[in-house]
Order: sequence, then C-alpha cells, then structure tokens
Amino acid sequence: MDLLDQPHHDGSTTYVGNPTPAPGDLVTVRARTGAHDPVVKAWVRTTTDAEPIFLECTRTEGSDTGDGATWWQTQVPMHNPTMNYRFLLLGEDGSQRWLTGAGTFEHDVPDAFDFTLTWHEPAPEWSRAGVVYQIFPDRFARSTQTEERETPGWATPAAWDDEVVFEGSDPRTPLQFFGGDLDGITEHLDHIERVGADIVYTTPVFPGESNHRYNASTFEGVDPLLGGDEAYARLAHAVHERGWHILGDLTTNHTGDTHEWFQRSAADPDDPHRDWYFFNPDGSYATWMGHHTLPKLNHANEGLRAAFTDGPDSVVGRWLQQPFSLDGWRIDVANMTGRLGAQDINHEVARRVRRTVADLNPEGLVLGEHNHDATGDVPGDGWHGIMNYSGFSWPVWEWLRADDSAARSFGTPVPIAQRTGPQVVASMRQWLGSYGWRTFCSSWNILGSHDSARIRTIAGSAERHRVAAALQFTLPGVPMIFAGDEIGLEGVLGEDSRRPMPWSEAADWDTVTLDFYGALAALRREHPALRDGSLRWAHVSDDALAFVREHPSGDVLVAVRRGAGPAYRLGVDVREVLLADGHPTPSPGPLQVPAGDGPGVLVLSLA
Amino acid sequence: MDLLDQPHHDGSTTYVGNPTPAPGDLVTVRARTGAHDPVVKAWVRTTTDAEPIFLECTRTEGSDTGDGATWWQTQVPMHNPTMNYRFLLLGEDGSQRWLTGAGTFEHDVPDAFDFTLTWHEPAPEWSRAGVVYQIFPDRFARSTQTEERETPGWATPAAWDDEVVFEGSDPRTPLQFFGGDLDGITEHLDHIERVGADIVYTTPVFPGESNHRYNASTFEGVDPLLGGDEAYARLAHAVHERGWHILGDLTTNHTGDTHEWFQRSAADPDDPHRDWYFFNPDGSYATWMGHHTLPKLNHANEGLRAAFTDGPDSVVGRWLQQPFSLDGWRIDVANMTGRLGAQDINHEVARRVRRTVADLNPEGLVLGEHNHDATGDVPGDGWHGIMNYSGFSWPVWEWLRADDSAARSFGTPVPIAQRTGPQVVASMRQWLGSYGWRTFCSSWNILGSHDSARIRTIAGSAERHRVAAALQFTLPGVPMIFAGDEIGLEGVLGEDSRRPMPWSEAADWDTVTLDFYGALAALRREHPALRDGSLRWAHVSDDALAFVREHPSGDVLVAVRRGAGPAYRLGVDVREVLLADGHPTPSPGPLQVPAGDGPGVLVLSLA
Repeated sequence: MDLLDQPHHDGSTTYVGNPTPAPGDLVTVRARTGAHDPVVKAWVRTTTDAEPIFLECTRTEGSDTGDGATWWQTQVPMHNPTMNYRFLLLGEDGSQRWLTGAGTFEHDVPDAFDFTLTWHEPAPEWSRAGVVYQIFPDRFARSTQTEERETPGWATPAAWDDEVVFEGSDPRTPLQFFGGDLDGITEHLDHIERVGADIVYTTPVFPGESNHRYNASTFEGVDPLLGGDEAYARLAHAVHERGWHILGDLTTNHTGDTHEWFQRSAADPDDPHRDWYFFNPDGSYATWMGHHTLPKLNHANEGLRAAFTDGPDSVVGRWLQQPFSLDGWRIDVANMTGRLGAQDINHEVARRVRRTVADLNPEGLVLGEHNHDATGDVPGDGWHGIMNYSGFSWPVWEWLRADDSAARSFGTPVPIAQRTGPQVVASMRQWLGSYGWRTFCSSWNILGSHDSARIRTIAGSAERHRVAAALQFTLPGVPMIFAGDEIGLEGVLGEDSRRPMPWSEAADWDTVTLDFYGALAALRREHPALRDGSLRWAHVSDDALAFVREHPSGDVLVAVRRGAGPAYRLGVDVREVLLADGHPTPSPGPLQVPAGDGPGVLVLSLA
Repeated sequence: MDLLDQPHHDGSTTYVGNPTPAPGDLVTVRARTGAHDPVVKAWVRTTTDAEPIFLECTRTEGSDTGDGATWWQTQVPMHNPTMNYRFLLLGEDGSQRWLTGAGTFEHDVPDAFDFTLTWHEPAPEWSRAGVVYQIFPDRFARSTQTEERETPGWATPAAWDDEVVFEGSDPRTPLQFFGGDLDGITEHLDHIERVGADIVYTTPVFPGESNHRYNASTFEGVDPLLGGDEAYARLAHAVHERGWHILGDLTTNHTGDTHEWFQRSAADPDDPHRDWYFFNPDGSYATWMGHHTLPKLNHANEGLRAAFTDGPDSVVGRWLQQPFSLDGWRIDVANMTGRLGAQDINHEVARRVRRTVADLNPEGLVLGEHNHDATGDVPGDGWHGIMNYSGFSWPVWEWLRADDSAARSFGTPVPIAQRTGPQVVASMRQWLGSYGWRTFCSSWNILGSHDSARIRTIAGSAERHRVAAALQFTLPGVPMIFAGDEIGLEGVLGEDSRRPMPWSEAADWDTVTLDFYGALAALRREHPALRDGSLRWAHVSDDALAFVREHPSGDVLVAVRRGAGPAYRLGVDVREVLLADGHPTPSPGPLQVPAGDGPGVLVLSLA
C-alpha cells in the first residue's frame, strides 16, 4: 500500500479541532482513510476514569482533500485531565484495525501508544514556534573584560585556541577554563540571528568550581567570572530587545558540594539545611550518579521547597523578575529530580516549578532534560516539554551515522547502531505514540548538545550533517542548535564537543552549512506546516525518507536521502521547490522524487 | 528462524534468580540466545531513578540446556520499588537488538514493554497455585431453605428452569429472582472439587435490590435471602475444611442508592455521610456509568475511609475475621475506583485496601476487576492481580470464536474480531510485556464471567471450547472458571450467561468437557511448569499454536489447534503424553506434532 494511503490521525489542527481544550470540552477528532481502503465504519475508543467507551464516527467523503480520502469524525469529551484515544476501523470484510499514535495494528495493543489530549496549559507559543540556540558560556565568546579577570584557584587556564581536554579520567576536564563570558554572548547576537535562532539558552551561569557550572555553589548571583548579575542583565536585555527569549539552566536535582547550603549542613548535623539533602547517619549522602561533588536535593523538605521552587522569592522565581526577566528554565536532570529509591515526587516538583514560573510569567517555559524515556512525565502540569533525545536524536544518529562513528547515546556501552530507514521510522513512530503529539511539538529536536558528540562528527560529512539539520527543522519539535554545529564544529563526545567557537577563524567556517541553517530557520518561520502541520510518512526505504506536513495554510513535503538511491513517485503534486541541497529538483506537477547520487534534501510546497 | 531459537527471558525461575526481592537486593537475571544466533556480547539496561544504566552480562555456554543455547547473566540492583530492564544483544556483525517483554526489536522502543522486578510483596502462593471457581449466588443452587423464604417486593420470582431474561432494555433483567443461596453452594462443593477448583469466589452477598447485588444497601450483614451471616459462615467453614480458600466481592467504586449511607446523605445535605459521595449543588451525584442507582463513593473523604477501607472494623476488614475469615476480596470496578475527572487516588485506595487485608491476614488476596488496560495499576502495593480480560480473554476469543459469533468484549460496538495465531500471539506478548510477568501469573485467566458471553457459545463447539480451556490452564495466570462453563452452559452475553446450574439435568451435561477441566486442573497441580514455568512460543501459525513452559522440575509443551492443519516439527524431545484431546498423539523422541483434522489439544512432558 502507498504509505500516503494509510489511515492517519495525529494531534495537528487538520485532525484535532481544539488541541488546547478546557475541562468538559468536546474535542472534535478526525481520521482519514485512503481512497482504496474499504473502511465502512469507524469509532473512537477513549477511556473515562479508566473505563473504555466507544464513540461512533460520522463519515465525510473527501471533503477536505482532492485525493479521495474518507474522513471519520467524532468528539472526545475532556472528562479526565489527559484523555487517551484511538480509532477502531471496520473493514468491508469485517476486519478490525486499531489506529494508534504508533500506527495501525491488526491486533489489540495496550494503550501505551494511544493518541492523547490534555486540558493542561500548553507550552507558550513562542517556545514552540522558535529556534533554540544553546550556549556553553565558558566556550562561546570572551568579551574584552575577560582579560581583566583573575583566574580562580580551582581552574586551569586555557588559551582560546587550546585543545579541549576531554578524557573523562583526566582531572583537568572539568577545570580547563577558557573564560567565555556573558558579554561575549551579547556581542555575538548577530551571529545567532544569522543562524535563525530566537531563543537563547545558556547552560548554568551560577558560580561553581568547574567550567560547566552544574555544581552550583550558590543560586544567589551570577558567576563574577561571567560578568556577574550586570552582564546577565545586559544579555537578557539585549535578547529581549530583539524580540527574542532567554532561558536559564537550573539544577533542581543537586547542587555542588561547595554550595552554601551543603557546606553548612555537612559541617553541622543540626543545621536547618541538613534535610535539604539526603545525609546518611555516617555522614555520607546521596549524589548524582555517585559523584560526591554533586549532593542530591531533597524536595520533600519544606525548607528547600520554600527556598528553591515555591513563590516569587525562590530560586526558580527570582530570576524571572527584573532585571533578568528570564523567560523560563531548562531543568537539568529533570528525569531524576525528586526520585530516589522509594521516593518519587518528580511530578510534584515539576508542578511546583511550573506553578512558580506561571505565576510570574504566564508565558514562561519549563523544559526538562530527559535523556531516557519521559513517558508519563510529559505532557501535564509539570515540564512543558523535554530535550527529545530518545524520539529524535538517537533515531537520526542511527540513520545518518558514518560507518566508523564511535558516538554513543548516553550511558550506552557500544557505539550507536547503524539502522535503516524503516527501523528508525518505526522507532520514531513508537516514541511519538508514547510521548504524544503535544510533547513532541513542545520538545527540543537535538542533533547534539554539550553532553554528546557533535552531529558533524557522527554524520562524517557536511552533506549528511545537512540532512540531519533538515530533519531537525522539519520534523515535529523545536530545533535546538548547540552553538558551533552550524559552522561544522566537531566533537567525539560531550566534553570534546565543548570546543571554543573559533571566531578568529571564520574563514575556515563551513558557511554553506551555516547558510543552510539560516535557510531552514527561515522556512520554518514562513511555513506553519513545518511548525504545526501533521506528520504523514510518504516514503520509507533504507536510504531515503519522505514525509508530508499538512496545514490549512499549505502542505509541505520533505524528502531526504542519506546516500545514492533511485527515483520514486509519490501521489502528491509539487507547487514549488522551497529548498534543495545536494539533490536534483523535481518539476512542478505529479511528484517524482529524482534519483540522487548522495545525501540530499528537498523541501517542497504542495499544490 | 525456529521460534525456540529466539532470544528469551521472562520472569520465571529459570530466568530470574529471585522473583520476590527485597529493597537493595541484587537480582540475577539471565537470558538465552539460540545456538545459531551469533550474539557476542550482552548487557542489561535498567533505570535507577529514571536514569538508564547498563550492566554487562557474563556468558555461559549451554550450561543449563542440551540445546546449545548461550546464557547471559548479570544482576539488577533493586534501587527503586519497581525496576524495569531489557537486554541489549550485540551481534557478530555489530547489529544491536533489544530483548523486551514483548519480544525482540531491531530498533529502539520506549520502556513500555521492559521486563520488571518489584520489591512489593507478591500475591499469596495459594492464590497463584489455585484454580478459581466463580459463583453468581442467585443462579448456582437453591438449598432446601430457599422455598421457605419470602420473595422480596422488588423481585420478579422465577422457577429454577425458567429462561433468563437478558435483554438490557427489559426492566426484569436485574430483578428476575431465582433464589439460589449460600447453603446451596455449600451443598455442592463436591462438584467444585470435581472441576478441580480450590478457590471459591462468589459475586456479592450483601443485600441489594437486584439479583446481582452489585448495588449494596448495606455492608453490615449478608443478604437474608442468601441465608444471612450464618449461611455465609457455614460456607466459609466448609470451604476452609477442605483446605480451600474463599473470596468475597466488594464494590469499592459505588453502593446502591438504597444503601443506608446514601439514603441518609441524599435526604439531608448536612448529613455527615454527604461527602462520602459526589453530590452536585443541585442534588445530582456522580454514578457508575450514568446509572443513578449506583452512586459513586468518594475515597478522598476521611469518614468513608474509616468506614470502608481502613482498619479491622472497616468493611474491608471485618469480613476477613471470624466467623467468615474470608481469604480476600475481588474488587469490583477496581479500574474506576478513586478515579473521577480530575481526581485520581486509585492507587491510594488500592494500597489502603491491601494494607487492611494484609494486617489481618498476611496471606490475604486483593484482586481487582479491570476490564481494560491495567498497566501501571499492577503490580505494586495495591491490587495483587486483575481479571485479565485484555491479555487473555480477548485474544483467546479472537482466535477461537465461531464464524457466526456475535460476542463482544466490554463496550465494543462490534463483535470481537476473528484473528490468526500470529495476530493473537502478538497481542498476548504485548500485554504480557506491558503488565509484566508477576501481574500475569497473579491474575485470572478468564474465558468468560457473569459479565460476558460464555466460551461455549463463542467457540461454537465443545472441541474448540476445550482448546480454550487448555489455554486457560496452561498459559501463565490463574484459571477462573465461571460456574457452568465446565458443563458446556451457553450464553450470548453477560446477563444470558447467568443461567441457573441445571442440577436436575445432569444427564444432559457435557461430561467430556467437565472431566477435561478436572484433568487440566490435576495437570496444573502436578506440574510446576504449568504454574511457574517460563513461556516460550514454539510454533505460531494461523490455526496452530505451541509453547514450552520450562521449569527445573521438568518442561511441559502445549500444542493446540483451532482446526485442521499439517504436521510440524519442533526441536524438543517428547518424554510422555500428559493429555490429548481430539488430536493424534506423537511418539516419544524428537517431536513431530501430528497433522490434525480439527480442534485439538496436546500436553506433553519433555525429555
């Protein structure tokens, strides 16, 4: 069967009447079945209070499309905060199929991949429409003031063009200090504009005795080595001046062992901060992954809650106010926060953080780092979205990795697998089904971060790198670019990927790729289909993928190849070629995707 | 690939060192890979506090089996109450596969089907090893005392051999009163013994103005129409005398509108019971599925908790004490209990019920009715198990239904689908993966109940009915027989299935099937493999299924057909034919399952 002829539903506006319903609302949901698919009747099955109910669909022949599709429609009542649902399709021959978020099944499956609707507030519009640029302050740019600062005792000073020490066992890894600062970022906003980003997200700016600063010694002020509160206010102001947004990075899971709270509680078992951590009777304490420098916070403690998460004067709250007016937080280790052994108050912590942010800024964002399976943690009234490594990064890596790539996903003992188109699409469909449409659209499409290898190194060529970038900007989700990806920086693992931005070597930059990022960002801004459109897979073969994103304002087709391959036809009509990279362009009219002799990208508007 | 050559792991003792671990334990887990499967390395991936970690496996060549399998072993730390895990298998060619509870995947999948271990207490041994016999008291047997009782005003009296009125729209359906009673059950325990059951579970015995009594008017005493407290005590005593167990049926979700609590709170908005229910300002109230006679209980209310779930004097507690000494409860509508709109305290209610039961009887059982997807509700510290309609009943119905069957699963708008062996096995594997091994082994394998069509009617023949019974007794899970199934009673839907037991027409009983149940129960008692053994699929074709259940005390193979089909070979050796029905028997030695000319069952012990 032609993939475009398969039954389809997703959370986009073509298929869901109101993706942001209120309690008690009736939400219109619609599915399409193909012209040659003899479906005679359809129902939606949902559950109310965990009890299944079936809702019969009405049928509308090809009302919306010229392709002869049949549309099936009914209304889902918002009885519970999150409603799961799927379609039951009855065939002419009596066959019964389930249409779920992971595709169509000819046998019963658990609800894990059901579509979902939720009455919780969605992520703010700017956060879903924007493009995120991630900056690791020590490595992005020095301002002129850097030279005047004294290197602290814990640091190993490095020149801007020194090689990064990245062997995990080398004690210099977290201490090598390049001296990038916040004014350095402010001075380079034009570069970020060129990339097409409009959300500036910096990794932590609180002081910590490391170059990464995920081991905060206080949350009271910005690291003077970065320019202090004033420099942060200048950066935030400059970002807002451009109509952009700025996000901080907060370690809700732990502090550094140099943190003032920890210092006091470690020194005195009777200190009121003692139970802000998890001390054992022998003085040992819970940590992040066994690192004694990163003591874990106990969010069951009322004192910690008041200080950290609750109210305008908490850590979460105060930085959202003048003169910084952060637009939200990226939450570090969100997956582990509030979880330790028998304790699991993760959702409660997420809700508290979100409530404090929403009270101060109804348009504020709370986005969680989650490097594993976030199912159940989103969407809801906690994290608005996550860093979508599982549902985006790893499948894309698996498809585009170079033969000799040694890159690994987090914690994995072997290099990431090489997989075919059908395999990675199956994986992406399961993750989309498990997380749900809203979570995908509110989460970050990441090709790499300060914690992983660089996409250029993984892909092994600029051409494949651009295929990855095209997927990042055109699949559902918010592109997050780790600064330097756009000019082709390399890195074999997280620490190595933190190479300083080579501002003085701009002549060596891969400006073809840089301009490609800019073009992708512009396309995403201009075409609502790329932000809010549906996702229908159109072609899936070992080396080539194509999908349509439908939107009332116009449909867009994306076709990518990872290598040479034959032409193929699709049952859609081309209006205009929006973008082509390393790929022959098709003519307007019925689409034949031309044969390609290597990696390539085509983005087309459809008639 | 031969199915038996596929990688395998499950929760049975062959694969898990300690299926009932304590916090902090290291649990040995082992996977097998086939003789011809070139796996060169394996890891277990688990998560601690939602963070993935990998544990390298050691390799042991064919140490346990003569079939050349390779075994991979490591230890999972019990860091969280429930640990999920899967195996990563690295092939000679660099391929990476995930082995999960739903099978092997060549691409990444969410954790939904991961294997699980939990440190919560398991269901009591007797409840997992036994066979349940479900009795609907009004229809099972009259004692001599029935004649002396006056029919209550609400009831429509019926003679024992009257036809059951079962059209849902007929107001007589819940009121037709046949007058079975508890002494009637006591008088027929020999029949239950013949069936091979040893756990007597009756639907509710509290008074309610209906023949089903799911609309209790009090929980203070047993319905006098059933013989009152004394008759219940006599039944419980007689059951325990045989070394058997007895379970009650409790409606935690709702009461009848005739219940004393509801009567008072409906009459007086200031009555202290008012908030035991969900009254709206206009006097309307929340119900079970819109039935105004079934007002829903509010378990967030402290008063209700004290009266219903908490402590020895609560409803949950008192019936576990002398002179009844119930061995536990089947919880009606467990899926909806504590769930209403934005409120979801289901797990908390389940925990309270379980705690009260455990405090009074550490060997007590709490089993939840769940007619949909119970993933996440079990296993844990709430319900020990569930009525496994999704993972057992519906797939078996789908495979064995007669061509003209109109039977439906709960709420479904169309008859249950006809599906092939590969389809129903795929479904069962996903449910097993989603629920986990412990839940399956602690849950009830149901071919039908007082709420559904009868298996004989669905299967359309005695032969296919016996195939279903064979699956019920040999797949992981506890057989629950709805009284009358064993003699071939029919019923097209729940109400119709409540036909009185035709004691006076024993000459017309299907005693072949009755004896077959007894033989299956005996086999299950004699062969630990059928209770606690692994589950490895050996053959899956449209019309024939076979699986091996491995156990240190001896492996058992079960082969069933739903119709005529060819012979097939399996790479195992027959020791002895334990049971054969409608099927030629193979010779000892290398197994060739003979061709069959219709439905049939073979149960074999393996060499």
